Amino acid sequence: MWDALWTEVSLATLAEPGGVGLVEDGALAVENGAIAWVGPRAALPAAPQQLARTLHSGGGRLLTPALVDCHTHLVFGGDRSLDFALRAEGASYAAIAAAGGGIRSTVAATRGLSEEELAAAALPRARALLAGGVATVEIKSGYGLDVASELKMLRAARRLGALLDAEIVPTLLALHALPEDFKHDRAGYVDRVVRELIPEVARQQLAVAVDVFCESIAFTPAECRRALVAAREHGLRVKVHADQLSAIGATELAAEFGALSADHLEYTTPAGVAALAAAGSVAVLLPVAFIVIGETQKPPVAALRAAGVPLAVATDCNPGTSPCTSLPLALALARAQFGLTATEALRAATVEAAHALGLGDSRGTLEVGKRADLCLWDLKHPREFGYWLGYEGLAAVVRGGKLRAGAPA
Amino acid sequence: MWDALWTEVSLATLAEPGGVGLVEDGALAVENGAIAWVGPRAALPAAPQQLARTLHSGGGRLLTPALVDCHTHLVFGGDRSLDFALRAEGASYAAIAAAGGGIRSTVAATRGLSEEELAAAALPRARALLAGGVATVEIKSGYGLDVASELKMLRAARRLGALLDAEIVPTLLALHALPEDFKHDRAGYVDRVVRELIPEVARQQLAVAVDVFCESIAFTPAECRRALVAAREHGLRVKVHADQLSAIGATELAAEFGALSADHLEYTTPAGVAALAAAGSVAVLLPVAFIVIGETQKPPVAALRAAGVPLAVATDCNPGTSPCTSLPLALALARAQFGLTATEALRAATVEAAHALGLGDSRGTLEVGKRADLCLWDLKHPREFGYWLGYEGLAAVVRGGKLRAGAPA
Repeated sequence: MWDALWTEVSLATLAEPGGVGLVEDGALAVENGAIAWVGPRAALPAAPQQLARTLHSGGGRLLTPALVDCHTHLVFGGDRSLDFALRAEGASYAAIAAAGGGIRSTVAATRGLSEEELAAAALPRARALLAGGVATVEIKSGYGLDVASELKMLRAARRLGALLDAEIVPTLLALHALPEDFKHDRAGYVDRVVRELIPEVARQQLAVAVDVFCESIAFTPAECRRALVAAREHGLRVKVHADQLSAIGATELAAEFGALSADHLEYTTPAGVAALAAAGSVAVLLPVAFIVIGETQKPPVAALRAAGVPLAVATDCNPGTSPCTSLPLALALARAQFGLTATEALRAATVEAAHALGLGDSRGTLEVGKRADLCLWDLKHPREFGYWLGYEGLAAVVRGGKLRAGAPA
Repeated sequence: MWDALWTEVSLATLAEPGGVGLVEDGALAVENGAIAWVGPRAALPAAPQQLARTLHSGGGRLLTPALVDCHTHLVFGGDRSLDFALRAEGASYAAIAAAGGGIRSTVAATRGLSEEELAAAALPRARALLAGGVATVEIKSGYGLDVASELKMLRAARRLGALLDAEIVPTLLALHALPEDFKHDRAGYVDRVVRELIPEVARQQLAVAVDVFCESIAFTPAECRRALVAAREHGLRVKVHADQLSAIGATELAAEFGALSADHLEYTTPAGVAALAAAGSVAVLLPVAFIVIGETQKPPVAALRAAGVPLAVATDCNPGTSPCTSLPLALALARAQFGLTATEALRAATVEAAHALGLGDSRGTLEVGKRADLCLWDLKHPREFGYWLGYEGLAAVVRGGKLRAGAPA
């Protein structure tokens, strides 16, 4: 007997390339935290009460895989709302930094907290994210900027997963910003990252991927290449913050290393799009940061779509450029601002986001053997997905086979 | 003895022009649904337990007036998510209309529902809005487009207020779109509105204000002027949808009639700004519609601010251009996109929004005698207001003196 059986649901299985995989009068069975059966209700092998210990009716609603947030900086210390307040009052970035704001303030606050304190600070943010239907959360380091603090951030992310009984995927953001003490020694900092930080993270298995911020205001393609080579040598996958503010070859670099994903992409060129398509990397769009930094150039969605590059969307939750803990909101903004279709939005936060984390085998679709991470939406049809802004409309959330929120009617 | 007393709160009283009116260690008393005392805790006339039957601790959080959503189209029939889906797939507006979409589909669906059914359809949207800290909701008619259907919409709005025990302010949106049956008789439709609809609404006291959509795709300034004259003759206040898509003198028209507010304002000229300032009208900004229609020209916030025009922000909740039921989200977007300061955002959804409805005497600030409509936010300081997107962070909501949501810790 199965543990649970869902009926009176439309299923968006997402199990066909590029499509919704809609099963209008569907059924889905859960056993041992995994999907044990999925298909049309009419094809069930017996009457529901003979098949499962618990029966759930979805009331005709839409059942999808739970969401995957594939790009966040959820673990950090301190508060950057003062930066925003000063900026709105006309202060320059330099003045904000002089007032103790900017990324340096986040680095100082993050260094000053213990692993336990960092996890506790992130807890309300993580809870808000899960309340929006997210079951798997990627969390990047990158506010420590020294070996011990980066390791501490990755451990705090893992601890957060244990506190919430949620799936956390830590990523080493190895090159994010240059720390003050290496201001005159860029090569020395990259050396430290390549020779100490990346090997240590690999040895302790604290992350499966290494990310770099390849940008005019951060690290050059040559510096990033060194980190990506080190990642490859230590058996880690790679991701790249690419072309957010300018096109300096970051996307091409990501593709060259077979990156899981290239993220942001507002300034990606046709050559970058072609390189991503050839590499099979996922394009991760971050529409909240686009708004918050006041960007006007949109990522080349039509070109990415035409080239067959899979599109993911994430919150980019971070205190400086994307104070956002709602993936449904990011999806609605991706539809409204970037013109994603409802199907693209649904895939962007499930199957494609899972691929962006190298987890396409275990989550992101409704298929037998995958994790029973499910969302029951107050929607009748997938085309309604991402239409409302600021209204998540979740009737139930299941993570790892357990009903975590909502009472399906 | 007071009914209730709140302590351990920072108060944003908003009782000073343009400011927050912060009282850091404040206290606020409620009696008979109104604010009975407000000030520094140290100035309380006796120990709290001698003063009130119920004591609430705010845990050091920020207590503000509850929010006022001063521009919504919350009551409507039907569903427009298919329009959005088709648009994302590249369909033209004409093709969407031909497929049965567009505003005509909303009009047909609205006409087809009874007063009770319209209220029921709006109920989940209204609940979502209230869950975001809103205590007073303006709701416009404008999808009926005939006398009986417009009156039905206004009654449905009133009924919704009774269902929710919430304060609903119905507005007659007298000129919104030209109905099909008057396609060749614009003057005949305006005649009907001026001679029948407006007088009937006034006679039945179904609205306190008349609104018009003065725009190239809607009604001309001359047509709108006829409606505004009729409103004035019948003792109704006026509001104008102005300069959303083009500058055809709508804001100047609003000012000429001493409008409560002019709303949208993306294309408002310096002359329009000066006219609003002279008239004392409120400028209502609608940042969600700005995103959803893909607008790139922002309202002239700096000029409005410099001229001393009060700024309000609203959801504009409607199925076609602003599918949004979160006023905190609209406020965060107004900060991120339009550069409102935290103080402006807080005033925009409280005191200035109350003025935009002609209700500044009874709500929008924490002052003795005003309605006890309160929000307790998970914030330490007003400068954090509107910083997070998609995270409402409400610890408690009080409407009309009653604790409606949240358990203050």
